[in-house]
Amino acid sequence: MSEQGSTTLARPIEAEEIRARRERLLAHPDAAGVDVMVWWANHRVMYLSGFAFVPTERPIGLAIAAGGETVLFVPRLELEHAETYAHVDRVVAYPEYPGRRHPMELLADELRALGLRARLGGDGEGYPKVMGYRGPKLTDLTGATFAPLDDALETMMQVKSPAEVALVRESARWAGLAHRYLQDLTRVGRSETEVEDEAASRANQKLLAAYGGAYRPMSWGRSGPHAGYRGQIGAHGALPHSLTTNAVFQAGDTLVTGASCPMFGYWSELERTMVLGEPSDEQRRWFAHMLALQDLAIDACRPGRTCASVDEAVQAYVDAHGLRDAWRHHVGHDIGLRYHEGPFLDVGDDTVMQPGMLFTVEPGLYVPGLGGFRHSDTILVTDGEPEFLTDYPRDLERLTLPVG
Amino acid sequence: MSEQGSTTLARPIEAEEIRARRERLLAHPDAAGVDVMVWWANHRVMYLSGFAFVPTERPIGLAIAAGGETVLFVPRLELEHAETYAHVDRVVAYPEYPGRRHPMELLADELRALGLRARLGGDGEGYPKVMGYRGPKLTDLTGATFAPLDDALETMMQVKSPAEVALVRESARWAGLAHRYLQDLTRVGRSETEVEDEAASRANQKLLAAYGGAYRPMSWGRSGPHAGYRGQIGAHGALPHSLTTNAVFQAGDTLVTGASCPMFGYWSELERTMVLGEPSDEQRRWFAHMLALQDLAIDACRPGRTCASVDEAVQAYVDAHGLRDAWRHHVGHDIGLRYHEGPFLDVGDDTVMQPGMLFTVEPGLYVPGLGGFRHSDTILVTDGEPEFLTDYPRDLERLTLPVG
Repeated sequence: MSEQGSTTLARPIEAEEIRARRERLLAHPDAAGVDVMVWWANHRVMYLSGFAFVPTERPIGLAIAAGGETVLFVPRLELEHAETYAHVDRVVAYPEYPGRRHPMELLADELRALGLRARLGGDGEGYPKVMGYRGPKLTDLTGATFAPLDDALETMMQVKSPAEVALVRESARWAGLAHRYLQDLTRVGRSETEVEDEAASRANQKLLAAYGGAYRPMSWGRSGPHAGYRGQIGAHGALPHSLTTNAVFQAGDTLVTGASCPMFGYWSELERTMVLGEPSDEQRRWFAHMLALQDLAIDACRPGRTCASVDEAVQAYVDAHGLRDAWRHHVGHDIGLRYHEGPFLDVGDDTVMQPGMLFTVEPGLYVPGLGGFRHSDTILVTDGEPEFLTDYPRDLERLTLPVG
Repeated sequence: MSEQGSTTLARPIEAEEIRARRERLLAHPDAAGVDVMVWWANHRVMYLSGFAFVPTERPIGLAIAAGGETVLFVPRLELEHAETYAHVDRVVAYPEYPGRRHPMELLADELRALGLRARLGGDGEGYPKVMGYRGPKLTDLTGATFAPLDDALETMMQVKSPAEVALVRESARWAGLAHRYLQDLTRVGRSETEVEDEAASRANQKLLAAYGGAYRPMSWGRSGPHAGYRGQIGAHGALPHSLTTNAVFQAGDTLVTGASCPMFGYWSELERTMVLGEPSDEQRRWFAHMLALQDLAIDACRPGRTCASVDEAVQAYVDAHGLRDAWRHHVGHDIGLRYHEGPFLDVGDDTVMQPGMLFTVEPGLYVPGLGGFRHSDTILVTDGEPEFLTDYPRDLERLTLPVG
């Protein structure tokens, strides 16, 4: 990270790009005949307005009229926050949920004022049941029919713009720094949690030194770079989605890591397999298979090929080498405003890859009693070679940790 | 925390209590005629099976047959994890999502084997669109009709058992420790993020020393105690749900904190208003009003009264003292497996309070240019006096931080 001071700092997505997203969505065939759209899911509201928020029982919705007029509907306590950050024509606040009059009734009035007559679109007829929320459907309140547009929007979100790719790349840069600290701090006898805390804290200090108050995670639950193990330590690493176990590191452990950093709403994914002490022959063998799988999967991320073909190539290798018992999951997923999103590098996903799609490429092998073997890199599909957005050593030599 | 070594350590909810929850749910009038239930939302699956997991695009569902038989349906990569922790009769794994055959088709087969004929119940006809998931409805695949049971279950979850209350109390104990560190570490010139990281790390070390490997957060995104400001520092604190801003502390700042700790899935909430340096007359005045509001709200948490009555009492005080411009939100919310859940201490919520209900009591006042004023305590409704599960000083004197 020595070049850190000389790098241009990342910035949130510009208002102009957000307006262009809305224009494209309004022009989508599925939106034909829709008077007004309403969007609820927080990553969709962020995509279409630039406003990041913590979803609670208090409904927040983004209304977009067919003519382009936009209203962000928020509880009173989010009013100033929304007015500061949302790229919309107006912010309208209701007093509180459930309140003396239900927020959906107030929103129904707003939608009528925006031109709702017959057809409502978006990602739900009412606010979802977040944190105990209950309420009526907008279709029942207004008599409008409903056109689900979530699949249209999700498909649009799959291809990233240059500005989005830049944010994921910047996320990966800070994830790499946190991972470097994690690797350097991991020692026999230390605990998972203390090493993770220290790695995150050090990386956070560096990020704040670079960005100062200009950094905004625009995510909920996390701020700044972090790296950790999620319990994938030694034999427990054979459970790929473990939760933290507070393990204490022991010589001989196979370790699987994970690192990221929310960057103005965008995520990257970096994972590495490391070995604590001189690797055994068994560890070397599984590591080599895992690396071969990742190599062939990354090379398969080419425009015009299907997502399924990447997984098929991996599974063919798995079967050819008799590794089926160690197989647990598909190759990877798209990533962006969410840590996982579609399409998936999976035998069942026929999506054709296009330049601008991002994938985590992370074929894994899991060996009971020994542990997990998985690298994950965030890869950009381009017109030519697949491009790494993550930048961290992948070879066993540089992922072997000293003991004692 | 000097008594920490002598305290009995908390444990996850026992299998027997989880079975009893399922029995009560099966006996609910809304479940009459339902052949099999399926539950998707992760806090509901945890409540009914003890299994905590990270929700992704790979569906996880808990099936409960009318006769009581239980099947947890998971992707292959969660199989061992689920078999280790879930209190169910069987775990059934599908290879992967989307996979060669869609998981919902495999689940439909399982449900038929469990006795699904005409009526499916639960919290959704299919897996929700998490992280880009797409798939068919189980009702379309099986021809069964659907009975939504989520309101029945949510209502059941509102009254906590003694074991649940004990976990929330233990969560509050560790939240208090993290908050103590936060208060002690906050100094003029330090940044929000570095102080939060250090407070969480120190409290985490203490928790691990006490619990060792027996601690399981059973939550996603967080492990261990934490305390912070979420950007509610100085004038920015007038935005009650701010996200982190990486502010640097300055003399005169009004500060609003938040602290919690996931404890085998359960949460508490502790928030305090603090002042950095000798409080001004203006800060004293707003702090005194805030404390008076919290006092009267806590005292109103009595069985037989409505949730609305607590908010009405607060709003009457607000209007009587001309504070309406500083009002932003209702008094509080239930808390348990989620950080917010219903019922709500709100003029629009007519739920009658019962012993065993938990509420955050957190009336707030927000003053542009000066900041936010809000304490939050987690309060148990009992047969007698409301009981504090949080235990931290509430007076201005002990919440005034030294300068220099």
